Amino acid sequence: MKISELARRTDVPVPTLKFYLRDGLLHPGQPLNRTQASYDESHVERTRLVRALTESAGLDLSAVRAVLAVLEQRPADWTEFLGEVQLASNPPGASDQRTDDTTDTWIQQVQELLAELGWQVDPHSPLIPRLAAQLRAADGSGVRRLPDTLSQWAEAARLAARADLATVPNDPVGALRQVVVGTALIDPVLATLRRLAQQHEAVTSLGAAST
Amino acid sequence: MKISELARRTDVPVPTLKFYLRDGLLHPGQPLNRTQASYDESHVERTRLVRALTESAGLDLSAVRAVLAVLEQRPADWTEFLGEVQLASNPPGASDQRTDDTTDTWIQQVQELLAELGWQVDPHSPLIPRLAAQLRAADGSGVRRLPDTLSQWAEAARLAARADLATVPNDPVGALRQVVVGTALIDPVLATLRRLAQQHEAVTSLGAAST
Repeated sequence: MKISELARRTDVPVPTLKFYLRDGLLHPGQPLNRTQASYDESHVERTRLVRALTESAGLDLSAVRAVLAVLEQRPADWTEFLGEVQLASNPPGASDQRTDDTTDTWIQQVQELLAELGWQVDPHSPLIPRLAAQLRAADGSGVRRLPDTLSQWAEAARLAARADLATVPNDPVGALRQVVVGTALIDPVLATLRRLAQQHEAVTSLGAAST
Repeated sequence: MKISELARRTDVPVPTLKFYLRDGLLHPGQPLNRTQASYDESHVERTRLVRALTESAGLDLSAVRAVLAVLEQRPADWTEFLGEVQLASNPPGASDQRTDDTTDTWIQQVQELLAELGWQVDPHSPLIPRLAAQLRAADGSGVRRLPDTLSQWAEAARLAARADLATVPNDPVGALRQVVVGTALIDPVLATLRRLAQQHEAVTSLGAAST
């Protein structure tokens, strides 16, 4: 198909498609002549993926490139693969946390939490300092936590992760796609569900308080 | 204190503080002379809040302005307040979903989910079309869901929301601050916990599969 047909099929404007092509986010088509090329279903699929990652998951272009690179490389080992995907699909702003002398205390708290939960995670995972920095930032701006709050959030995250893992198909390409795309695209779904659930819990607890 | 001292206390550079002042994100100090002003603890607190919202929660400046506006206005009614905060602390990219003729079907699916869950939420909440658009985007880029997945994610979100609500103090200003800041700043914490939990669940289920 021509680029105009690709634009129609994917609902992405031609100038954006040309940008994706120049930037390598979309692989080149089959050249027809000096100015035109032909595109196929693989271009439709890739374009939809890039659009979903930028629009729904809110990833910036460097994160999209990193996610696509994991899709290309296909690490052989499941744990390595999951680690790469998790790094690539950073939530925006999460990776540029500053570290200073108080961070060690926070990392220790995260390690104690993980030990208490009995979670088997890579002790060198960059997710550990990331979580420490996020908790420090929340604490630094006065977000209140009760003694149990952190382990309750962890339990909620584990329920979500268990549901995530159940959706992963057996074939490697399908699994890769599901984890890369699902991890990034389901973050906003969970954030919205959390806000709806807050409404429900607020109404329910107010109702209970007024009786 | 002088602006240089404010910079030292908050670890935010003077040029950034001047930008916050020009942009209204930070309220003016007490003028000392034509070029200098004096700042107090309220400036320290506000600066730390703005930095946390931009750096940790990844909010863009317009979202930060919206969150700060809710803090100023203090809506009287709890449900209205919660609604405003939820709108203001949009995760990036979540609010600019396009709608088209397939969206109605998705909204209906979300409404069926909410009915099935028995959640009491505002039927006109913009969170409903937002969730519909996010699910449609995930589906459109091939994220796989089993029949139970969505209600499992919802249950995970409800556990998180219940933990959230338990942290909200009784005084209105404190409650306001906790919901505004906590809703925005805990999204990345939950996203990171989800990735750590995925590691744990993957290791655990692989371990189970290999025995």
